[in-house]
Amino acid sequence: MPASHPRLNARFNPLIEQLSLPPVPAVAAWGRAYDKALGPLIDLSQAVPGYPAHPDMLRLLGDAASSKAYTGYGPIEGETVLRTAYASHVAEVYGAALAEANIHITSGCNQAFVCAAMTVAGPGSTILMTEPFYFNHETTLAMMGIGTAFVPCSAENGFLPDLVSLEAAMTDGVKALALVSPNNPTGAIYPPSLLEAIFRLCQEKGIWLILDETYRDFLPQAGSRAHGLFSQSGWEETLISLYSFSKSFCIPGHRLGAITAGEAAIGQIAKIMDNLQICAPRAAQAAVAEALPLLTAWREENRQEIGRRAEALKTVMRSVSGWKLDAIGAYFAFVRHPFPGRGSAEVAEQLAKRAGISCIPGVYFGQGQDGYLRFAFANADVETIGLLEERLRNFSLS
Amino acid sequence: MPASHPRLNARFNPLIEQLSLPPVPAVAAWGRAYDKALGPLIDLSQAVPGYPAHPDMLRLLGDAASSKAYTGYGPIEGETVLRTAYASHVAEVYGAALAEANIHITSGCNQAFVCAAMTVAGPGSTILMTEPFYFNHETTLAMMGIGTAFVPCSAENGFLPDLVSLEAAMTDGVKALALVSPNNPTGAIYPPSLLEAIFRLCQEKGIWLILDETYRDFLPQAGSRAHGLFSQSGWEETLISLYSFSKSFCIPGHRLGAITAGEAAIGQIAKIMDNLQICAPRAAQAAVAEALPLLTAWREENRQEIGRRAEALKTVMRSVSGWKLDAIGAYFAFVRHPFPGRGSAEVAEQLAKRAGISCIPGVYFGQGQDGYLRFAFANADVETIGLLEERLRNFSLS
Ligand SMILES: Cc1ncc(COP(=O)(O)O)c(C=O)c1O
Ligand SMILES: Cc1ncc(COP(=O)(O)O)c(C=O)c1O
Repeated sequence: MPASHPRLNARFNPLIEQLSLPPVPAVAAWGRAYDKALGPLIDLSQAVPGYPAHPDMLRLLGDAASSKAYTGYGPIEGETVLRTAYASHVAEVYGAALAEANIHITSGCNQAFVCAAMTVAGPGSTILMTEPFYFNHETTLAMMGIGTAFVPCSAENGFLPDLVSLEAAMTDGVKALALVSPNNPTGAIYPPSLLEAIFRLCQEKGIWLILDETYRDFLPQAGSRAHGLFSQSGWEETLISLYSFSKSFCIPGHRLGAITAGEAAIGQIAKIMDNLQICAPRAAQAAVAEALPLLTAWREENRQEIGRRAEALKTVMRSVSGWKLDAIGAYFAFVRHPFPGRGSAEVAEQLAKRAGISCIPGVYFGQGQDGYLRFAFANADVETIGLLEERLRNFSLS
Repeated sequence: MPASHPRLNARFNPLIEQLSLPPVPAVAAWGRAYDKALGPLIDLSQAVPGYPAHPDMLRLLGDAASSKAYTGYGPIEGETVLRTAYASHVAEVYGAALAEANIHITSGCNQAFVCAAMTVAGPGSTILMTEPFYFNHETTLAMMGIGTAFVPCSAENGFLPDLVSLEAAMTDGVKALALVSPNNPTGAIYPPSLLEAIFRLCQEKGIWLILDETYRDFLPQAGSRAHGLFSQSGWEETLISLYSFSKSFCIPGHRLGAITAGEAAIGQIAKIMDNLQICAPRAAQAAVAEALPLLTAWREENRQEIGRRAEALKTVMRSVSGWKLDAIGAYFAFVRHPFPGRGSAEVAEQLAKRAGISCIPGVYFGQGQDGYLRFAFANADVETIGLLEERLRNFSLS
């Protein structure tokens, strides 16, 4: 346009402009800068399963994707085959009466959180979280203009929140409490009794409990029940539970998650999902519906394997002085680094670039977490975890 | 819980509670209530391609989905293969210099709109639209607490907005103008000169132009260029263009769309997408990257076929009295029904249930559109469109 026009540049939404950059790509860049002097990079950064998807899973995905049956738009709430298969599965997992109408399929668990948050809170309302928090929960709320408030959790208490602090934080304008169990980043597993007490508190206060159970299938005890909340009377008006097929089925690239909630909440979520993306990708839904009963034994083996990786990491951490394993559970360990005066981003950057260990700085999970690093140990096999010992022992900050 | 507890029910977000129900499932229910007395249902409701995906497309989808290569998380902005293939494609389509850095892949074009809207407008800001509008645009903004304002378009002006009304509506707080060309619901095709004048107006006013080009590949003129906006200086600070792979490749169930924008805007959008769903489904991205050059001739045939369907509908509408084809273009026709005192929802419901013609009531596209019905004629072949004549002629409201 002619230079004589005074051009007013269109501006970005400040809520988005202020948003911090996605952490995972930034951390990956540090890993790429490592020269492999100590051997291959040990990637403990993103929470991805460190073993491939089952061949049957790939076959089912291929069959469904090449089928004409799934090319058209599908039902907003999800394919009936998957909603019913997943409903029977969760009914068994929780020993509760859950049906297709309680299930909404999403494109992964981040999207499930977006839907759940929007269902209960609009701009100007507040959602309560624990700190350390899963960073995408915090940025999701920030970008939508939903306020956040935090209940701090610390190593002394196993990174579990206490009821008194929770209740005190449930002030006016708080519409929901968002929890993650098993926790990201700490790995902490909330005991059923604590979850039940928190549920009752939410119910009394008339606020929603959004429970992200992405790591539910990796509880250390075989066949243990995460909680009995779906058997509590009135759960439909208080609980929204979120799940991801990414980790358990090793298919994050196919983007599938699920919400379990009361029918009324599912109805609200469908209105949101229609706008967000009409429906989740269909072929993967059909494939997972078949894989769900088929891969039970394989998933149980993976749960045990991740248990062995946790044991291997405990052994390593006991033998390197200075480093402290403050929490370990399903998938993650929250590790106190031995450089108290230095920021976790600096420590993680040097650890990646010079020792070939990629992990996420604690500060990404909350300002107060700068003494920590998150190790997504599930990504590495037992042998690789063993290699951490020498690398950590020889590491010093420059 | 014990009856003595006064239970405060947790409440839904009023922005979501007030949202109207998704129109497509409601309309589909009317179609299912039709007794087939006049032959099979003629479905002109949802904008889905009325022919199957190409066998090569299905093969590529199957191959990619069964591959280990796409099971993990992928880059937020999209697979490099698809971003580069699509960038070359749009560079050719628009005769402009566009590169991978200008492309962000999304899970369909509804999600592309969510990203674009959020990038430029937060709660309390306003986005300007034309009326009749694409309903999901309106409900998307409503659910995010973004205000909407409308510039009316009417049959006299070919359902195109005029610059004077647009400028008058660009008041304080308006952050963007959202247009759809070729238009849903009217089919109206915005001439390049009009789009360029609107672009300059937006640029002068410092507001964004969000242009949804979902139906770009169905322009009636072979090889015609939708617009030259990507060659305007400073386009990166004003234009965000949206596209869907759903219609052109007949794969809505695989959920893929794309945003073409300046690099700075793509950077903001990546922050949003990381929260919304980390990345679009990967296997379909890889498949479409290969299909893009492969299916050029097939897509051109489809464009011509939809042209023939438009001609068939024009012939039908000339021969039924009372009904008036006020607009027809790529994919859609906007039809004035002959029952001026009666609402479009009532007309569409009876038309579906008693005449086996499923279409969307005009009122879903704006309060002022109650005299209209939207026919997504692209869904039906020429022969089927011919069957409309008798059904419409014999139809009367009960
Ligand atoms: C707690 C938590 N919620 C949600 C997600 C996102 O999972 P999905 O791949 O299903 O979007 C993750 C992924 O790391 C996570 O850790
Ligand atoms: C104008 C417009 N934009 C976006 C969409 C959504 O397309 P997608 O399937 O890519 O989400 C549609 C679908 O009908 C549409 O008509």
